[in-house]
Amino acid sequence: MPDAAGLRPLPPGSTIGILGSGQLGRMLALAAARLGVKTHIYCEESGPAFDVATATTKAGFEDKAALTAFANTVDVVTYEFENVPVATAEHLNALLPLHPPPKALEVAQDRLTEKTFISQLGVPVAPFAAVGSAAELGAALARLNAPAILKTRRMGYDGKGQIGLKPGDDTAAAWAAIGGHHCVLEQRVPFACELSVLVVRDRNGLLAAYDSPRNTHENGILRRSVVPCGLPDADLMLARDLAARIAAALDYVGVLAVEMFHLGPQAPAAERLMVNEIAPRVHNSGHWTIDACGVSQFENHIRAVAGWPLGSTARHSDAEMVNLIGKEALAWEALAAEPGACVHLYGKREARDGRKMGHVTRLR
Amino acid sequence: MPDAAGLRPLPPGSTIGILGSGQLGRMLALAAARLGVKTHIYCEESGPAFDVATATTKAGFEDKAALTAFANTVDVVTYEFENVPVATAEHLNALLPLHPPPKALEVAQDRLTEKTFISQLGVPVAPFAAVGSAAELGAALARLNAPAILKTRRMGYDGKGQIGLKPGDDTAAAWAAIGGHHCVLEQRVPFACELSVLVVRDRNGLLAAYDSPRNTHENGILRRSVVPCGLPDADLMLARDLAARIAAALDYVGVLAVEMFHLGPQAPAAERLMVNEIAPRVHNSGHWTIDACGVSQFENHIRAVAGWPLGSTARHSDAEMVNLIGKEALAWEALAAEPGACVHLYGKREARDGRKMGHVTRLR
Repeated sequence: MPDAAGLRPLPPGSTIGILGSGQLGRMLALAAARLGVKTHIYCEESGPAFDVATATTKAGFEDKAALTAFANTVDVVTYEFENVPVATAEHLNALLPLHPPPKALEVAQDRLTEKTFISQLGVPVAPFAAVGSAAELGAALARLNAPAILKTRRMGYDGKGQIGLKPGDDTAAAWAAIGGHHCVLEQRVPFACELSVLVVRDRNGLLAAYDSPRNTHENGILRRSVVPCGLPDADLMLARDLAARIAAALDYVGVLAVEMFHLGPQAPAAERLMVNEIAPRVHNSGHWTIDACGVSQFENHIRAVAGWPLGSTARHSDAEMVNLIGKEALAWEALAAEPGACVHLYGKREARDGRKMGHVTRLR
Repeated sequence: MPDAAGLRPLPPGSTIGILGSGQLGRMLALAAARLGVKTHIYCEESGPAFDVATATTKAGFEDKAALTAFANTVDVVTYEFENVPVATAEHLNALLPLHPPPKALEVAQDRLTEKTFISQLGVPVAPFAAVGSAAELGAALARLNAPAILKTRRMGYDGKGQIGLKPGDDTAAAWAAIGGHHCVLEQRVPFACELSVLVVRDRNGLLAAYDSPRNTHENGILRRSVVPCGLPDADLMLARDLAARIAAALDYVGVLAVEMFHLGPQAPAAERLMVNEIAPRVHNSGHWTIDACGVSQFENHIRAVAGWPLGSTARHSDAEMVNLIGKEALAWEALAAEPGACVHLYGKREARDGRKMGHVTRLR
């Protein structure tokens, strides 16, 4: 059926362009293939997605001629990482549909914009302050008067570009260590647990959510996601509602991941959840959906950007997803021999420290 | 661990060569990608598998130079259809490991060889006779004295190359209609239902089996596979045992599908099952394993040929798989909107009559 804007879904045989060649692009390409949809990966460097896509382009994100040529070979464009330059997305979006919208990139790329945008929607975030100098940092830390985290506004991921501070710490040294970049100082939230909400929204604004996993991080990198997360239903409904509000405000199409803190049962019901950050893409904490749901986050993202009906987000099994980081992936043979373990390897050549090489989902 | 022959499993990043470019090759390539294993498709014609493989070669199966060049780029070879010429498989097998063994092709390509091989293992098959002339056909039909099916010895699939006969029918006309090819006349079995046994066998002879689906055919083409099939456990154990006997006798590595007839509860327990035919490859009646098992038939075939530990064949959901044949695939949008339906489309351009375009698995 044509959607609200009169657009028809892309038929099987169409091609989805994907910006980025990492494991998320790879799993998107595999999900598209299930539906008979082709993929064309565009990235500055070749990566895991190149091996499974129908077509590939290796070119810069600033290379307008290459972007235009790419646009001419695909029916719609999406992306697998939030640091795609907004100008790249806007150049493409002027030529053909691009989902999620460039606005989502803009918001997600700058922690100050992100926190401001989210809190203006009435969605709780940790108290924060913009910090543009050592003096501002000192003043902000004094004002918060609590343990805090100094984060660069841009390009931080997997715990990079972050420094913990407590009242009385040497803020000049911290400012120097973070390299004098524009930053946000964020109050450290004494959370009981971390969870994420994975919603998928179609072109008509219809929204579906996966069961929220409970996430554990180590050294700033996601280690483990578990469903069900064990939180009360009322809290999970609130979590979905907050994520839905963000998705609607962005006029979002595709999968949106919203990472949240749960402050524990002693907090008032309406104030138990706080948004940490959003990722305008499929998300590591949703990898278990490949093995524990009929339709994975990857397939539902493809469905949404192609204008297809969303698939069911129902879960048929309890699941635990554990990332394989760096040399952990060398244990592939033992993992493959483990009954009930679903092993996923991304085809990366070098098992560097801190690099996500694969993941294992254990069905329960 | 090295296996009995001292061989190590192929590490992630290795390349599996696949002969054949159809949907089975496509789903094998997608399963390999999950494990970080690359695929190189070799076929006379491009097909659905070409869109998702890391590398492709379009060349004839008799082209020894092209086959040798292909062998030099891959670590092991397998195939997705049983009509790969035995000489092609033997040429490759002299250069590098090829699984399943060429012997399995030899047996499966000729209905007379197949039925003789199977019955010599003490595995029941329908009464049959080799037929090389109209006169032999007349004599064989008189001897069987029962409804029967005349089948060409070679190249029949999806019900092609078959003619039904009953005692008294015009055997000369039937012989002319089938084109005078070497044939087998097979007694029509009054079966209660059809099932298939999907076993996977590793390089050490370790064997695992999926739950057997109950299959329904229409116009000689598989329409539907349902698990669980509802047959008594004792019958299913016997079915697995018969399939295991065939796999062991072939020194088989990979997924083997054995189609069987169940004669109904009134038949003596040891005689309730009869083998119809074998397919030395992943099989249409096992497509539900993608959605209803942690490790699909495709992944387990890849694991077996790569020397990996076999994955669990356990099923987490009841399932029904229905093929989308010809124009049925045009209903993709309605199917995609159906809650609980897992839609698979093979990326074939033309929805010709009788062509398998995709399948839907409904989880229960």
